Amino acid sequence: MNGAESLVQTLVDGGVDVCFSNPGTSEMHFVAALDRVPGVRCVLCLFEGGVSGAADGYARMADKPAATLLHCGPGLGNAIANLHNAKRARSPVVNIVGDHATYHVRYDAPLTSDAEGLARPVSAWVRRSANAETVGADAADAIAAALAPPGQVATLILPADTAWTEGGRVARLGTIQKPAPVRAEAIDAAARAVRAGAGTMLLLGHTALRQQGLDWAGAIAAKTGCRFMAQMSNARMQRGAGRVAIDRIPYPVGMALTALKDVKQLVLVGTHAPVAFFAYPGKPSALAPAGCEVSTFATPAHDLTGALAALGAAVGAKLADAPRQKLDPPPLPRGALTSEHIAAVIGALMPENAIVCDESVTTGRGFFPLSRAAQPHDWMQLTGGAIGEGIPMATGAAIACPDRKVINFEADGSAMYTVQSLWTQAREKLNVMTLIWSNRAYEILRGELTAVGAKNPGRTAMDMLSLGNPDIDWIALAKGMGVEAVRADTIEALIDAFKTGLKRTTPFLIEVVM
Amino acid sequence: MNGAESLVQTLVDGGVDVCFSNPGTSEMHFVAALDRVPGVRCVLCLFEGGVSGAADGYARMADKPAATLLHCGPGLGNAIANLHNAKRARSPVVNIVGDHATYHVRYDAPLTSDAEGLARPVSAWVRRSANAETVGADAADAIAAALAPPGQVATLILPADTAWTEGGRVARLGTIQKPAPVRAEAIDAAARAVRAGAGTMLLLGHTALRQQGLDWAGAIAAKTGCRFMAQMSNARMQRGAGRVAIDRIPYPVGMALTALKDVKQLVLVGTHAPVAFFAYPGKPSALAPAGCEVSTFATPAHDLTGALAALGAAVGAKLADAPRQKLDPPPLPRGALTSEHIAAVIGALMPENAIVCDESVTTGRGFFPLSRAAQPHDWMQLTGGAIGEGIPMATGAAIACPDRKVINFEADGSAMYTVQSLWTQAREKLNVMTLIWSNRAYEILRGELTAVGAKNPGRTAMDMLSLGNPDIDWIALAKGMGVEAVRADTIEALIDAFKTGLKRTTPFLIEVVM
Repeated sequence: MNGAESLVQTLVDGGVDVCFSNPGTSEMHFVAALDRVPGVRCVLCLFEGGVSGAADGYARMADKPAATLLHCGPGLGNAIANLHNAKRARSPVVNIVGDHATYHVRYDAPLTSDAEGLARPVSAWVRRSANAETVGADAADAIAAALAPPGQVATLILPADTAWTEGGRVARLGTIQKPAPVRAEAIDAAARAVRAGAGTMLLLGHTALRQQGLDWAGAIAAKTGCRFMAQMSNARMQRGAGRVAIDRIPYPVGMALTALKDVKQLVLVGTHAPVAFFAYPGKPSALAPAGCEVSTFATPAHDLTGALAALGAAVGAKLADAPRQKLDPPPLPRGALTSEHIAAVIGALMPENAIVCDESVTTGRGFFPLSRAAQPHDWMQLTGGAIGEGIPMATGAAIACPDRKVINFEADGSAMYTVQSLWTQAREKLNVMTLIWSNRAYEILRGELTAVGAKNPGRTAMDMLSLGNPDIDWIALAKGMGVEAVRADTIEALIDAFKTGLKRTTPFLIEVVM
Repeated sequence: MNGAESLVQTLVDGGVDVCFSNPGTSEMHFVAALDRVPGVRCVLCLFEGGVSGAADGYARMADKPAATLLHCGPGLGNAIANLHNAKRARSPVVNIVGDHATYHVRYDAPLTSDAEGLARPVSAWVRRSANAETVGADAADAIAAALAPPGQVATLILPADTAWTEGGRVARLGTIQKPAPVRAEAIDAAARAVRAGAGTMLLLGHTALRQQGLDWAGAIAAKTGCRFMAQMSNARMQRGAGRVAIDRIPYPVGMALTALKDVKQLVLVGTHAPVAFFAYPGKPSALAPAGCEVSTFATPAHDLTGALAALGAAVGAKLADAPRQKLDPPPLPRGALTSEHIAAVIGALMPENAIVCDESVTTGRGFFPLSRAAQPHDWMQLTGGAIGEGIPMATGAAIACPDRKVINFEADGSAMYTVQSLWTQAREKLNVMTLIWSNRAYEILRGELTAVGAKNPGRTAMDMLSLGNPDIDWIALAKGMGVEAVRADTIEALIDAFKTGLKRTTPFLIEVVM
């Protein structure tokens, strides 16, 4: 057994059975081992940002890591933006980077690079395998590191000779750390805070936004009169009929300050204190009002459902009192193709158990209210602000949940960063419907230009924010990668296209011309 | 004057008048400043790998840096692969990365990242501006660092508040370091070596591969009987009629060992000792034969033309004796659409003064011999092995040399990494003809799988090397981004398409179906 085979077997034994891959020469033995050691589904991506974004989407839905397979430092470089998003989503990822043979590095061949240096800013754990004998144990450690609460990116660098040399040993997974329970004093303090009623807000993040956590938050609010809200950008929220609805902190600083203005005590549950996404001249970075007492009840590494349940018990909350949303989708809209009408289409037609990958940027800011009473669904957002994750994330989510419909809301500017992932969806015949908001602009930046006080933008500045000249033809792009696509430039056409897409079980793209 | 304006004016004054850009919120003041401070051509790319690859291609042809404009650590991440190639090409690049305002970093907002950590592996110089007053001086230092011989990537990180705050001061460029002359003893030693005749080889890299350097190498060889050869991958070679022809070290290790087997003394001129691109079991990493004496006559930071001229003078070589190639293009081929026939089409139809951006990978290995007697041209290769540079590099070269035809030979697998750059070519109406070698495979990896000894690849392995299922439709992709395209699946169709493309002055793509 060579090192590569011990690696693959260790992954399989450790429950890692999907590998998103963009291999090169240094990874050929790993690729070959995938046929000799059964149990891993290997998914080819044509760009490494597709690999890392898919691994993130997969982890968010599967609650376990996929492996990646990347080629040397530059291949890792291409994966960094979506590894950054994965890190911010607290997704477990076993990030495998092939590299030159140990003895080849000193010759400084063209692809020689500092893979560790590139990995560290996005990885909680980085190791370079020393030889074939240790590769299995390194892989087991990588899995454990990826699964360490709250979920982490673990990067294992695999020199080519550690893969091809005989002597590989399969390793058993060691003890996997569990999310810690919160301490009794923390429960007492949080109980005192929520009993103060409407002046207190529970701010939820991470797995507190799953159904059980939300149930408890709703029950606690029903009992005490406190409020609860979600962070601005969240890895995964469970929403719709049967769930407790929750609002998010808005992106625009002014709206965020308004949302939080009456909060006297902010109790953090699996998140940190709310901050502005960017700095703006004359506006605060911290969003909690002056004098507000901010306390951490539970960090993301804690057992958040358990923490909320314990808090609920401490204040005498009853799950039965949680204000669960009734199914009440909005009526299908008529009229102009506005964001508001699009939101109504989504709320009305969302199928049960859908997975939403939301990289809508500006177009989607108003989507939330009209889908709160839609069919139950999961909603995933861009957690790290590095655009270009939507299409890969949808790809990974569809691999994780083959029985569910994945719906990707995608801004045209963001879509172009990792557009190659449409090809992977076609090859793997994934049940993904992509809606491209084709406004031919980095529309968000038009607002940001004003928000940061850059006055009277001229022609050059406006050209940098426009995706027109030439307009991108999304039907042609989709066809180029084997994805069925239609264009919708009225609300009626969007409704028809959406209904058609729901009937498909293979990739389907709608260019929504705004 | 704010910091952003002082930055732009310092760039203009320092001769940096092109900026390849993919901005976000943190860079809005820089973008706005471009309208208030005239003199910079700003070119929008829809992905950061397009930005860095274009900056590399521009620098290779303009012999001066372009600026980039990237958004935070993740935007820099997306640029790393082509910055790696630029570093290996020794291209000067002023790499500007916008980041959060200085005071915002501690709040750990979603896009907060270790930009310095990501920059260092690909940059010779990294600095974060402290305030608006120093931005101008920092930019001047960045230009000087980029231009320091042999050419470097200089990364300047620009916190948003240093851009928007008043108090910016334009800085003058300090003294720019010049390439150093070689020492007299080095000339004496090299003269002794080349006088030994056929057992000695001059191995040339960097600017030694420009016309003047090659003239001297040819003259020295004519006088002494020594040989000369180029490195495997080169930033820019001047070739064709009127130039001294030179072969490259072949990529396959066996062929490279054969090419060098009789060399007793290897004299390095602007390069390092030849090494295998990858390690292979049982094959050497160093390519010079056992017992061969390897000596460095000139490093890439030396004045290489001057060094070769001095060596020529020392051995009594005469430029008139340099064996300059006569114009003798191959006849147009007939028959099958093979690599050999494609090479003949290129040799026959290459227009005068063309710029070739070669990311052909396997298909192009045989292109060199049949274009050595073509019209004079520049040939640029992938220097760092990070595929996905061809389309961006061609974009940058076309911006640098608007009066010349740019021809991009592009493997389909490589093209997909940075396919968005076609859109930039369309927007800027660039004179680029792209030939996609559409073999629907990472064909090189099929050979590499065998070369590394991974035997009997199974279905999974072969799937990872195939770009089929579905086949990529390059005509549709080009159309999607506003680029005119035709398909050629016979040699006659390729000839017709090539001739059509030569008549165009705007982007034109040929899908060559292999």
